[in-house]
Amino acid sequence: MTPFKLTEELIAQIEELIEHQRDAELNSLLEDVHYADVAEIINELNEDEATYLIKLLDSYKTSDVLTELDEDVREAILSNLSSKEIAEELAELDTDDAADIIGELPQEMVQKVISEIEDREHAKDIVDLLRYDEYSAGGLMAKELVKVRENWNVLTCVKEMRAQAENVTRVHSIYVVDEEDKLIGRLSLKDLLTTSTKTHIKDVYIPKVDSVNVNEKPEEVAKIMSKYDLEAIPVVDEIGRLVGRITIDDIVDVIREEADKDYQMAAGISQDVEADDSILDLTRARLPWLILGLIGGIGAFLIMGGFEEDFKQEQFIIFFFTPLIAAMAGNVGVQSSAIIVQGLANDDLKGSISNRLIKEMLLATLNGIILAILLFVFVWSYEGKVNISFAISISLIAVIIVAGLIGTFVPLFLHKRGIDPAIATGPFITTSNDIFGILIYFMIAKLILGI
Amino acid sequence: MTPFKLTEELIAQIEELIEHQRDAELNSLLEDVHYADVAEIINELNEDEATYLIKLLDSYKTSDVLTELDEDVREAILSNLSSKEIAEELAELDTDDAADIIGELPQEMVQKVISEIEDREHAKDIVDLLRYDEYSAGGLMAKELVKVRENWNVLTCVKEMRAQAENVTRVHSIYVVDEEDKLIGRLSLKDLLTTSTKTHIKDVYIPKVDSVNVNEKPEEVAKIMSKYDLEAIPVVDEIGRLVGRITIDDIVDVIREEADKDYQMAAGISQDVEADDSILDLTRARLPWLILGLIGGIGAFLIMGGFEEDFKQEQFIIFFFTPLIAAMAGNVGVQSSAIIVQGLANDDLKGSISNRLIKEMLLATLNGIILAILLFVFVWSYEGKVNISFAISISLIAVIIVAGLIGTFVPLFLHKRGIDPAIATGPFITTSNDIFGILIYFMIAKLILGI
Repeated sequence: MTPFKLTEELIAQIEELIEHQRDAELNSLLEDVHYADVAEIINELNEDEATYLIKLLDSYKTSDVLTELDEDVREAILSNLSSKEIAEELAELDTDDAADIIGELPQEMVQKVISEIEDREHAKDIVDLLRYDEYSAGGLMAKELVKVRENWNVLTCVKEMRAQAENVTRVHSIYVVDEEDKLIGRLSLKDLLTTSTKTHIKDVYIPKVDSVNVNEKPEEVAKIMSKYDLEAIPVVDEIGRLVGRITIDDIVDVIREEADKDYQMAAGISQDVEADDSILDLTRARLPWLILGLIGGIGAFLIMGGFEEDFKQEQFIIFFFTPLIAAMAGNVGVQSSAIIVQGLANDDLKGSISNRLIKEMLLATLNGIILAILLFVFVWSYEGKVNISFAISISLIAVIIVAGLIGTFVPLFLHKRGIDPAIATGPFITTSNDIFGILIYFMIAKLILGI
Repeated sequence: MTPFKLTEELIAQIEELIEHQRDAELNSLLEDVHYADVAEIINELNEDEATYLIKLLDSYKTSDVLTELDEDVREAILSNLSSKEIAEELAELDTDDAADIIGELPQEMVQKVISEIEDREHAKDIVDLLRYDEYSAGGLMAKELVKVRENWNVLTCVKEMRAQAENVTRVHSIYVVDEEDKLIGRLSLKDLLTTSTKTHIKDVYIPKVDSVNVNEKPEEVAKIMSKYDLEAIPVVDEIGRLVGRITIDDIVDVIREEADKDYQMAAGISQDVEADDSILDLTRARLPWLILGLIGGIGAFLIMGGFEEDFKQEQFIIFFFTPLIAAMAGNVGVQSSAIIVQGLANDDLKGSISNRLIKEMLLATLNGIILAILLFVFVWSYEGKVNISFAISISLIAVIIVAGLIGTFVPLFLHKRGIDPAIATGPFITTSNDIFGILIYFMIAKLILGI
């Protein structure tokens, strides 16, 4: 495979061809390009060019292209298409992708588009999917699947499957249902390759089948599928009826999005933004956390001001270690919260909160003592005052312990309360640890120096 | 499905049964438990109990259990097994999993274990896989796949496939090769369901097939598979011969590990650790970054000391805003570097470095002005001195711009140099921005206040 490479020359060439409406050349140029790559090209074009290309290319391909486009580009293109044109695109898509696109349309368009879809069965399935919360197994699943009844034999089964498989892009498992459409088991394609055609399904099917409830959260589905190495999982409703199927490619997207979200949270970016978003969008995502940092900084200022008289004359140097204390408190807090957030996300955190806190305290004490010795050596050799060196180093240990405990406790606490612990990482923990750290630092220094 | 839940009662019950060697009860208790869940149970047991259970249960199941265990637990158990016992486990595994396990064994065991594997074909495949770098497509792939020759007909094909499929857990695609074993195309299982048995493969196969080179990096394979929604991808050697296949479940692990690694880097955790690792391992992963922070803090101390005489008498308050300046510089740096690192990881960063820097400068200026106004209002109303308020606010803008530029430039620069940009996030960027920020702050304040 020669991998596709998006170049400026290619974009320029395509823009040129669009400008001169050289449709045949465009078609042959893009014929062998994968839809995901066509989507990358279209993301770089302006709205008119993009719409032109979508209208020009075969809807078999453009429907898939639409699912891969950036959301704002897709929205712009769809606003230039008639409800009939949109319906034609949706007809080519699996129900889950079609429902996702319909979900983005303005309310008044939805009904028009659905009524234009020729295959009424397909339209009905899409409408069914629209009922589900986007953020649930129901919102992820597709209606396309291969299912057989337990009282069929393998021959009937294969016949029915051939018909059903026409609509299913990838067959993973064959699901077995009872009279009431309740999921009772599965058949693997491999089994089918090696079983005689006269056998009855009820004699060969595997009665054990993993499934998820239609209301399950996407991360939970992701955890189950990746833990059990599943490539598809059936979705059942409240009374166990088979209503859809989730495939691993959708779950890969969920895993990526979750990871991106946690990463952005940890970096103090509150919305889902990309480097190529507008300055205004980026500001909206970044400014709130910076304002939090500003408030924290003002808090630190007020604390330092409160200790001004204590240290102004003799131990002035104490003030100069505030950035160090704040940095250490912040770093330790981020480290310990990150490891908890990650443990929670990967579901590999066992044991009680108090055990975690004891462990973190031991860890922080160990790290704190090592760092305090280094700092003591520096301050002593630089300033030559044992009492000040001692005060600063002891405070550092205390600050590190408290920072570690806050970093451990806050995400665990939020998680217990059902709040996403990822918000407790990054600027949130840094800011609160800055303030606590600085306060503890001055209080201990004052105590030790006996002021 | 009733999801499996790991409880302390269950662990206690199993430990009890092991202690009294009640094998039949253990077997029946664990019979219907998925191997991934059995692995979770064994991770909680001590070495003797774990070994007992692995020896007791059917090797068909325990082989899969072994692949799911924590690395240290697996290592301990394997050290208690004879080379014959290990060989029996490996016989049940796909070649990629078997090779991964062999790769962890002590050198002197490797040859013994391999010579004990009865199926010599399987042993040969495993040995082949050991040649590849763990961190490459070759290190990820399995030898198990279904391949057919272009000059066969569908009937021969189905017969051969039945035989091959016995060894392949999940059939995704059927790969078509020429006389020299070069990959030339594929057949889908769906095609096979709908094609007559007399047809020749060369008349029906799809000559377009994505593949990756055996030396490709895992992240690249992950990008290709998730971009093109592939569930398996064939791996070819330097001259295009089909040598293996990578499946999406391994790629899901790669994606998770990459995301975890980037997240930990951003949080200042340098090794792959989990919350349940030992305090020593955690210290090793966290301490280096804390020492970096300590050095940064000492730098800040030295800078402040250098400006002591300038501000000590009149504008003492200037010192009290250092934590605020450092926090803002750090936060902005982390935000901008995180967005670049993520853009690079997701491959959606286009345009030149200079364009990025101009954009970041505009963004930082906008954020900086808003934050500076807020700070000005606070300082002015609190202290009533216009010149000091002005000096602090103007410095803040400058600090934010410089921090944003550093945060943008450093990861882009590292990436250009072929270094993982993720190391530039977190403590690295915070510490350098702290120092630069504080230096700029005092210099500008001094300039504006005309000292």
